[in-house]
Amino acid sequence: MSEAGGLPIAPLCVSMGEPGGIGAEIMMQSWLQREVEAVPAFLAIDDPARLRAAAQDLGWPVPVAEIGGAAEAASVWPRALPVLPVGHRVPWQPGHGDPGLAGAVVAALQRGVDLAMAGAAAALVTNPINKKLLYDGGFGFPGHTEYLADRTGAPHHAMMLAVPDTAEAPGLRAIPATIHLSLKDAIRQLSTDHLVIQGRLIDRSLRRDFGLDRPRLVLSGLNPHAGEEGALGLEDREIVHPAVERLRDEGIDARGPLPGDTLFHARARAGYDAALCMYHDQALIPVKTIDFDRGVNVTLGLPIIRTSPDHGTAMDIAGRGVARPVSLIAALRMAAEMAACRAAADAA
Amino acid sequence: MSEAGGLPIAPLCVSMGEPGGIGAEIMMQSWLQREVEAVPAFLAIDDPARLRAAAQDLGWPVPVAEIGGAAEAASVWPRALPVLPVGHRVPWQPGHGDPGLAGAVVAALQRGVDLAMAGAAAALVTNPINKKLLYDGGFGFPGHTEYLADRTGAPHHAMMLAVPDTAEAPGLRAIPATIHLSLKDAIRQLSTDHLVIQGRLIDRSLRRDFGLDRPRLVLSGLNPHAGEEGALGLEDREIVHPAVERLRDEGIDARGPLPGDTLFHARARAGYDAALCMYHDQALIPVKTIDFDRGVNVTLGLPIIRTSPDHGTAMDIAGRGVARPVSLIAALRMAAEMAACRAAADAA
Repeated sequence: MSEAGGLPIAPLCVSMGEPGGIGAEIMMQSWLQREVEAVPAFLAIDDPARLRAAAQDLGWPVPVAEIGGAAEAASVWPRALPVLPVGHRVPWQPGHGDPGLAGAVVAALQRGVDLAMAGAAAALVTNPINKKLLYDGGFGFPGHTEYLADRTGAPHHAMMLAVPDTAEAPGLRAIPATIHLSLKDAIRQLSTDHLVIQGRLIDRSLRRDFGLDRPRLVLSGLNPHAGEEGALGLEDREIVHPAVERLRDEGIDARGPLPGDTLFHARARAGYDAALCMYHDQALIPVKTIDFDRGVNVTLGLPIIRTSPDHGTAMDIAGRGVARPVSLIAALRMAAEMAACRAAADAA
Repeated sequence: MSEAGGLPIAPLCVSMGEPGGIGAEIMMQSWLQREVEAVPAFLAIDDPARLRAAAQDLGWPVPVAEIGGAAEAASVWPRALPVLPVGHRVPWQPGHGDPGLAGAVVAALQRGVDLAMAGAAAALVTNPINKKLLYDGGFGFPGHTEYLADRTGAPHHAMMLAVPDTAEAPGLRAIPATIHLSLKDAIRQLSTDHLVIQGRLIDRSLRRDFGLDRPRLVLSGLNPHAGEEGALGLEDREIVHPAVERLRDEGIDARGPLPGDTLFHARARAGYDAALCMYHDQALIPVKTIDFDRGVNVTLGLPIIRTSPDHGTAMDIAGRGVARPVSLIAALRMAAEMAACRAAADAA
């Protein structure tokens, strides 16, 4: 057990992710930087033999300690990377994609869900997966998030992209109302009901997991200038505005629709805690423009805390030892902060 | 005549814009900061009595010198703000909108076009206008840009938003393929032909007006992840990709469609000179997120050089002396640099 915010919390767990990608390297780099970067303690759910082979191949001084349960992780952490065996043999083959390993990838994920659901892990941080290889291996979900929502029985969820505050400028929490749809379909599927559900979910999560007493939520406009009073499209007036009204009626501090283009500069960001955006790029362009390296993907609405680095498997550079762990470290830190906030909120 | 890039260029001219807005203040502030901010010489097209009243009201030491022609501006500039009379009586009424002044607003604009077309002014920099007041006053164009395209006989034009490079990070030049349309209509109107026309126009302008030998152009994708090979919408494959191919066939260094969300962070921006974006917010969100204050609006494709500050009339703060001239100064600098480049290109 480590301490965060005065309350003891369990270690974080990190799922293996795509074994042909950079997951092993960024976990090991995060461990190596644990003191200088104040990385919270985590255990890897992986094949210990694979990680030992990776450390040896790269010549990195990362002792790998196989553990029998999450409770051992904290005492191991100062001297070795704690690894809970995934129960599959996974070879160290950086850059190589093998659909035959889909079972191991999913097992690591499921083990992470089990640990987090049981409270043995404070949060699940997921390494990137290769969806195509998983589909070829029989995985039946569009991605991580849908799998996690299903396995944890969450009726609704939302994807939040977050960049932390810096000394120079406020960060940004942005939630696309829809994710992986064509822009045309994203417009078609926009609905007041959905925005209200997302707005509630964001409000609750910012209270419970981010320690905000009265979260300030903004909703962006779909159209240029938020539709300019109907001159540039009716959706902002007919779909977004009523959602804002309903959220306000429920006591949620929501504002909008606000023009997307003036919503994301530093002074504007200081005025709210989260932005519910109308489509993928409207949320992800500002997040990645502000800080391409430190973006964290957070799933809101699950019974467990789940974060993930905001990058892909990077199989093209895997095994070369050049992958940077900054996004994983940011995901670990955010998960630890959320876990501490949630523990405090649930104890209150 | 002043010197820029070794070639003598005529002064810039600045149109009055909405007289109830902050135009007078930001012109006077730009003149006051001419030395410390290296503001290029300009003449105002305005009512000298209005500017004198403004200077007196605000208590600013800005001598207003009525001139008889653009050629006088340079010698006046060091000691006074040169003003070419617009030929209308315009009262100093900050914050007050008067449709009866539409004629004066348009006269200032037309005078600016005439000066720039004749080469008496090196470029036209336009102060913001209040479209509603102009429409009420009988103005028959959607905005500045359409008026200028009509009056200068330009068959095609494009709106570029630009933020200058800083010591820390590269700037950005972004061009929305369509501007003031609902997002739904913007998708509907997207066409390969239009993108090719815009791409050519951007390429030519970057060569002639920005001194780039071989401009590197990127086209963003319309859909998330640029459509992910058709899984998230077909427009990127069927409309954008063929435009890139045609531009490349013409010898233009074009790439794309590239995912919008990973296109605008500092390292990505270092890889291209301009981004042709698929809709308003996709271009304007990154520009205004990167630098909300120093954005410049440039019209490409006109026979004259035209820039403008990237903000509105700000009638709510007009007359209080608090409006900041940073965007107008950025617009003046960019106009002067473009004029010098064009003069060099045309002389070569």
